[in-house]
Amino acid sequence: MALAVLFLVAAPYPPALAERVVGTALRDGVAYSRLQDLTDSVGPRLTGSPGAEAAVAWALQKFQEDGVSAHTEPATVPHWVRGEERAELLPAKGVAGLKLAVTALGGSPGTPSDGIEGDIVEVHTLAELQALGASAKGKIVFFNHAMSTASGKTTGYGAFVDLRTHGPAEAAKAGAAGAFVRSLATASFRSPHTGATDFAEGAPKVPAAAISTEDADLFHRLLAKGAQVRVKLWLGCKTLPDVQSANVVAEVRGREKPEEVVLLGAHLDSWDLAQGAIDDGAGAVIVMEAARLAAQLRPAPRRTIRVVLFMNEENGLAGGKAYAKAHAAEAPRHVAALESDSGAGRPLGIVLRAGGDGKALLAPWLAPLQTVGAASFVDGEAGGADISPLGPLQVPFVSVRQDNTHYFDLHHSAADTFDKVDRDALSRTAAAVSWVAVSLAEMEGTLVRPPPTPPRQRAAPDQPQPAATPPRSNR
Amino acid sequence: MALAVLFLVAAPYPPALAERVVGTALRDGVAYSRLQDLTDSVGPRLTGSPGAEAAVAWALQKFQEDGVSAHTEPATVPHWVRGEERAELLPAKGVAGLKLAVTALGGSPGTPSDGIEGDIVEVHTLAELQALGASAKGKIVFFNHAMSTASGKTTGYGAFVDLRTHGPAEAAKAGAAGAFVRSLATASFRSPHTGATDFAEGAPKVPAAAISTEDADLFHRLLAKGAQVRVKLWLGCKTLPDVQSANVVAEVRGREKPEEVVLLGAHLDSWDLAQGAIDDGAGAVIVMEAARLAAQLRPAPRRTIRVVLFMNEENGLAGGKAYAKAHAAEAPRHVAALESDSGAGRPLGIVLRAGGDGKALLAPWLAPLQTVGAASFVDGEAGGADISPLGPLQVPFVSVRQDNTHYFDLHHSAADTFDKVDRDALSRTAAAVSWVAVSLAEMEGTLVRPPPTPPRQRAAPDQPQPAATPPRSNR
Repeated sequence: MALAVLFLVAAPYPPALAERVVGTALRDGVAYSRLQDLTDSVGPRLTGSPGAEAAVAWALQKFQEDGVSAHTEPATVPHWVRGEERAELLPAKGVAGLKLAVTALGGSPGTPSDGIEGDIVEVHTLAELQALGASAKGKIVFFNHAMSTASGKTTGYGAFVDLRTHGPAEAAKAGAAGAFVRSLATASFRSPHTGATDFAEGAPKVPAAAISTEDADLFHRLLAKGAQVRVKLWLGCKTLPDVQSANVVAEVRGREKPEEVVLLGAHLDSWDLAQGAIDDGAGAVIVMEAARLAAQLRPAPRRTIRVVLFMNEENGLAGGKAYAKAHAAEAPRHVAALESDSGAGRPLGIVLRAGGDGKALLAPWLAPLQTVGAASFVDGEAGGADISPLGPLQVPFVSVRQDNTHYFDLHHSAADTFDKVDRDALSRTAAAVSWVAVSLAEMEGTLVRPPPTPPRQRAAPDQPQPAATPPRSNR
Repeated sequence: MALAVLFLVAAPYPPALAERVVGTALRDGVAYSRLQDLTDSVGPRLTGSPGAEAAVAWALQKFQEDGVSAHTEPATVPHWVRGEERAELLPAKGVAGLKLAVTALGGSPGTPSDGIEGDIVEVHTLAELQALGASAKGKIVFFNHAMSTASGKTTGYGAFVDLRTHGPAEAAKAGAAGAFVRSLATASFRSPHTGATDFAEGAPKVPAAAISTEDADLFHRLLAKGAQVRVKLWLGCKTLPDVQSANVVAEVRGREKPEEVVLLGAHLDSWDLAQGAIDDGAGAVIVMEAARLAAQLRPAPRRTIRVVLFMNEENGLAGGKAYAKAHAAEAPRHVAALESDSGAGRPLGIVLRAGGDGKALLAPWLAPLQTVGAASFVDGEAGGADISPLGPLQVPFVSVRQDNTHYFDLHHSAADTFDKVDRDALSRTAAAVSWVAVSLAEMEGTLVRPPPTPPRQRAAPDQPQPAATPPRSNR
């Protein structure tokens, strides 16, 4: 009893506050039912599609139902559409013809309507591609890697995503006819995983597709025995003119320092192959839950909690860039930013990127997260793709690190569907993010601002990586 | 030492014989490399396709290389072809439009070229379908089930396969426009699993497709909230006239009782969505390994070991029926039959269906299988679809039961590819099957013949099921 009193006295927050946030998130299950509504009734939300616009309307409606004031802020976004896609391994000596499991990479040009055809040449790094020299001409470059066999603390995504993002552009420069990238996946039932690939303005482009890990293994086996591996590829994808879209910005205004902002971000767009349940419907409903719960608090938290549902995280980051540009003047008053884009897994702990001893400031607030298993600081990198433009502006980053054991089994594939989400795990992470947001908004002081991230750094990962791994895009 | 001598004296076989069979199978790895050759260079082998005919030629060639005499025996087989297939969930109030993951069931008719469209009605049993009465007319009947959530010793396949085999025909009789069957799968990344469905000659037919477990869950969620679930389905599949194909029959002739036959079977055909690695490329190379090793023995085993690679196990059983018919006269001289059609998993033990005390006769021969973990009798049902016509003829059945934990993750889906096969597990099962075959061919006596299986029993399962489960087709 004496200990309990000591604890209550020592805590920097009213005990009832933690119960109202953490307890309610766990009891209500709103994040889960809302995610079902988003995935089943709004569905795929590729930037520029009717689904993406429906998601904007859906989010505004839900914020209104929650009593949270919300508006849209414009973002000019790319408009890439998929179309038909198929590929065939052509029969040859020792090679059976086979329909391949492929999906176009976002940003890829299409093929002519009668497809392209070429011999496969396998490389594992961009350097190996350079070393091919003129022998890459007319070939279909196949970027293979070892992600699916990666073990230990990292999934390998961060180590290999450059092959998808930049490999096809480099293949085009080398005169190749096309590019295949082994899916960035930790498990597969012949399921290709899409994702963005970048071609610079005016630079050469080639049709680029992800292939299933099984088909990558097949190419590798056939090439290892010296067979000719020749493939025909048809892609109907194309890039249409940019369109106007929007971020959805919602706020619970602070009672005492409304000009100071705790920013919570997630992205509303998704890939088009599935429902976007874990990427990033889960993140969207998690940060919406933080706003919903904060809006019920009387009095309101000291500072403003702002939730931004970004558009176009997956293939352009137009929403993240538009927000940073429009809000540059108030960046110094962003006291912290947290992005939720790591799926629906249970929370493991808190990651911080701040100056001074940020942990000492936040630590006394974390006790209520013992009940969800996330009351301590853990290794990793705080940040996220959409909030990465705020890094050079020295906004402190906070992340709730999640169990992502099965995240890359599903990520960017047709299997990213609602059934994969565990209600309890999602509720726990919603509780953790909500409590961290309320803590940052309510605590007396603010985190010391960290040194700026390098100005030309690419988007930070939304998957915490071991500290030794350099920051990379997780789009 | 005394014990070892006692053991050697007690064993009914020369010690070197076991080493030459079990040891060689484990050391050589021929089953594994041969399976790679079959899957990568022959590929999918749907009955009636060029791949199936290529497999016949491939098998004859391999038997020749092994010094095993082989020939073909004719079988008139069905010729069903797949064509294009796609389905869309149509948008409605509370329902997002979505491209569905579907694949036609073997034997299904196609749709008109502009597809069929209908509201989904969900049933879980054939009795529930009957209870719908006139309200099934014009609907697309959706057969849902709980296989993927089944736990314990059975996968649930045996309990639910009737929905796929007979559900669509019953839906057609009820006036439905089409049928969807939840994939018979224990795991899914949005991967539909095909399989045969039966329509009686002259009875009504409807287009019938498997849907991924994810899409089945989606239908269920939407129907549970009262939404209209309306789907459009396009199937290009059709049944062409029957064609002539063949079983491949290979023999290692017995030295003393050549007229007595130990029959080993597997099937050469596969579904068309993948490489047919676990179903049943694995079984084919396992029984081929038994013939290869037996052919190297000097002297040859006492009785004949006959390996039959059956055609058309998946969608008609024409090969199995043709064999039983052509060899009915020598059925009394089939001293045992073993079918290998349970994937590439490691062996767990031996299952026997024989009269008298068959176990007592075989048990002294099993010691060499201690090294592969399969030296004892285990529960289950011995048999297999292709050898099931021999059941009424009282042929004793023997099975090597395998670990099938992940078998139904892959079975009949696009993910049945060579990379899923573990070399060591496959070698162990090849060793076990080879040794059981040599034992049955070499032992002094023969198994007592069991009572006949009921004459109108459907094909026996190729997956051992708990004894309480009634025998069902595992096609």
